[in-house]
Amino acid sequence: MVAPLRVGIAGLGTVGAEVVRVIERQERTLSARCGRPVRVVAVTARSKAKKRGLDLSGIKWAKSPLAIATDPEVDCFVELIGGAGDPAGPAIEAALAAGKAVVTANKALIAKHGLKLASLAEKHNAALNYEAAVGAAIPVIKTLREGLAGTDIDRIYGILNGTCNYILTRMEQEGLSFDDCLADAQRLGYAEADPTFDIDGHDTAQKLAILASLAFGTKVSESSVYVEGIRSITPEDLRAADDLGYRVKLLGVAVRTAKGIEQRVHPTMVPKTSSIAQVMGVTNAVSIDGDGIPPITLVGAGAGAAATASAVVADIADVARGIRAVPFGRPVAGLKATGKAPMQRHEGGYYLRLLARDHAGTAATIAKRLAEQDISIESIVQRHPNRSVDANGKAAKSSVPVPVILITYATAEDAVRRALQAVQRDKVISGRPQVIRIEKN
Amino acid sequence: MVAPLRVGIAGLGTVGAEVVRVIERQERTLSARCGRPVRVVAVTARSKAKKRGLDLSGIKWAKSPLAIATDPEVDCFVELIGGAGDPAGPAIEAALAAGKAVVTANKALIAKHGLKLASLAEKHNAALNYEAAVGAAIPVIKTLREGLAGTDIDRIYGILNGTCNYILTRMEQEGLSFDDCLADAQRLGYAEADPTFDIDGHDTAQKLAILASLAFGTKVSESSVYVEGIRSITPEDLRAADDLGYRVKLLGVAVRTAKGIEQRVHPTMVPKTSSIAQVMGVTNAVSIDGDGIPPITLVGAGAGAAATASAVVADIADVARGIRAVPFGRPVAGLKATGKAPMQRHEGGYYLRLLARDHAGTAATIAKRLAEQDISIESIVQRHPNRSVDANGKAAKSSVPVPVILITYATAEDAVRRALQAVQRDKVISGRPQVIRIEKN
Repeated sequence: MVAPLRVGIAGLGTVGAEVVRVIERQERTLSARCGRPVRVVAVTARSKAKKRGLDLSGIKWAKSPLAIATDPEVDCFVELIGGAGDPAGPAIEAALAAGKAVVTANKALIAKHGLKLASLAEKHNAALNYEAAVGAAIPVIKTLREGLAGTDIDRIYGILNGTCNYILTRMEQEGLSFDDCLADAQRLGYAEADPTFDIDGHDTAQKLAILASLAFGTKVSESSVYVEGIRSITPEDLRAADDLGYRVKLLGVAVRTAKGIEQRVHPTMVPKTSSIAQVMGVTNAVSIDGDGIPPITLVGAGAGAAATASAVVADIADVARGIRAVPFGRPVAGLKATGKAPMQRHEGGYYLRLLARDHAGTAATIAKRLAEQDISIESIVQRHPNRSVDANGKAAKSSVPVPVILITYATAEDAVRRALQAVQRDKVISGRPQVIRIEKN
Repeated sequence: MVAPLRVGIAGLGTVGAEVVRVIERQERTLSARCGRPVRVVAVTARSKAKKRGLDLSGIKWAKSPLAIATDPEVDCFVELIGGAGDPAGPAIEAALAAGKAVVTANKALIAKHGLKLASLAEKHNAALNYEAAVGAAIPVIKTLREGLAGTDIDRIYGILNGTCNYILTRMEQEGLSFDDCLADAQRLGYAEADPTFDIDGHDTAQKLAILASLAFGTKVSESSVYVEGIRSITPEDLRAADDLGYRVKLLGVAVRTAKGIEQRVHPTMVPKTSSIAQVMGVTNAVSIDGDGIPPITLVGAGAGAAATASAVVADIADVARGIRAVPFGRPVAGLKATGKAPMQRHEGGYYLRLLARDHAGTAATIAKRLAEQDISIESIVQRHPNRSVDANGKAAKSSVPVPVILITYATAEDAVRRALQAVQRDKVISGRPQVIRIEKN
């Protein structure tokens, strides 16, 4: 009999407990698939007394994550504590320094300290697997790290945060406000009490930074990502998008440009016919455009104990089988630095929604200011909601601002910003213009 | 410097030539990703003189596939000849017997002789990689073999043949007949001059047999798959499906049932809202339902030189990195035999389209025969196309048969067959009833 892989798990929340259960339930399958048994030999968590519905007899209870990470009877350290700092970080470092394989679901830690950990892993010839950190059981890390090893990637983009997609889906389908949908998401457990990290795009940014590193060979760097959340999206935007053949999704996009790798997270209009537009509710999806290859799209649950545990156990199985790629697909020394995406130079189509003061000629003024910046208009829609019509069929004057919606052809973002500043100086619009970037297939 | 992986390629068609190009173009990336250079050292093809736009200087031209397979200066044998027989089969066997890693895109060979080849690979401790055999660059083999190693799979189903999906998409979107769409597909190069293998479902069956083996640990066996093609599908079926909220796709489905693993290929009605229903044209897709996990869906091109070469190069990169799982995920000795799906015992919903002779009471007769077999009807639609109405508003008698469309709740297939036989004996319908199985999410 080949020696079993001895696994130590730090963190027994819903994911950690499910990992213990799956390894036990799948004992024979895992042993057949890996050519050796996989056994949980040590665990730890904040409270030993907590009821988890787990039979932990025969498994050592360690006094700390660090104790497991340095236990000579543990081959593979599984970190399911979370958080970019103590105790997760030091424990992983200790495990790698001891030459142990590490499996983690900790996206914050990989996004913030992935480079340092990857260097340590390389130095000590240890595995560092983190499939569960992005998209749970969707095999996106493996696909980028191994499956597309010979493919030049041009763009990778995806819906990486279920909370935001749930909110946008409800807003679109039921015409509800952002605040109402957020409250519902919180009630259903899809959003945290403090939802900032999700809805302002930071969760998506951390995941994107990891995917960009794997796709483009850049140094993983959360701070290189331009981030904009979904708070400003209104039901009016979603209705207008629908009329124009689009949906609004919070996308993380990393794309190869002439100026380097651009990484950005923002609400994005995508054609309704695209694969990514079909992804509704808490589901996640990632599309990968390889050189000369039609896009590959991976869709599935981005969270949940069973889906996350599935990815963690697959990572453990890779360790048991001796399957190992370097953490970011290429040696750390070969990863390139990347700067923050200069969004003023971003090139693309734009959706603009302006509230025109209802003077004749407002649309003409807006069109003139756009033309001055060489911006071509693909479509323009002016709506006159509930406006009364006089006996001659002429529209009555009204002081209520009227939305004007424009879709531009591809242009540079700074040109759009300059045109909108000019329109605001002209005093023909009320309030702040809404600007949503468009991502075509 | 680590020794390079020396690759020998048999077959220089569009895929083989693209593999040579990619390995050259990606030389530095591959070397960084694999920790060692990847070099093509030998090639062979039927004609040496043929123009391929390849610079083969410095690469040995071998006299046969077998010569490459047994060349001591080749570490990895790449078979891109195709066909389940000679010369592909014997060459792969020779390479494995010599302990060489084998990479192939040959689905027919893996479906028919995969078990024998996997035994050889195990015996000689050699890799046998075949990602390109199913879904080209869609990483479905890797996902099943490695990515879901710890997950019990309940069902796997997919659109595995681009030709059929192209034909069904055109029929649906343009109301065209099967024959017209097939002719177009042939003109555009999406279908062979002899389209039988694709449209009668055999290509899908071979791919499904491979996926089922990886998903369920069964012995790969094409002959265990129940197969029905798309020739019988009419524009009327697609219109009726649309009205009822469905689309028709040729699916390969492998599912765990109380009676064992059921493998089947047939036209299938899927809810329009499902991920798989969104897959149009030549695109392929695979959905995997794991125990307790929301479905994972992988979408992408299922054919094409660049997409296929991407998968072949990824398989070669895995060999270079020493990443290796046994060919079917589990040792051959642990794979279970599986019998042909007994479709008469298949349980599911059914779409039935009957041509009723226009006697009063035909629908009642049909409903009675279904009720006798304990089949519950979810919906029934009777259409009276272009029927004249007399001066009193009553429908005029007509001798033109009228379609009656029924959707049943889940029932056993033999009950449906018995009910339809009774209806035929009642002589209230014309011609053969159309029966399409329904696959719900």
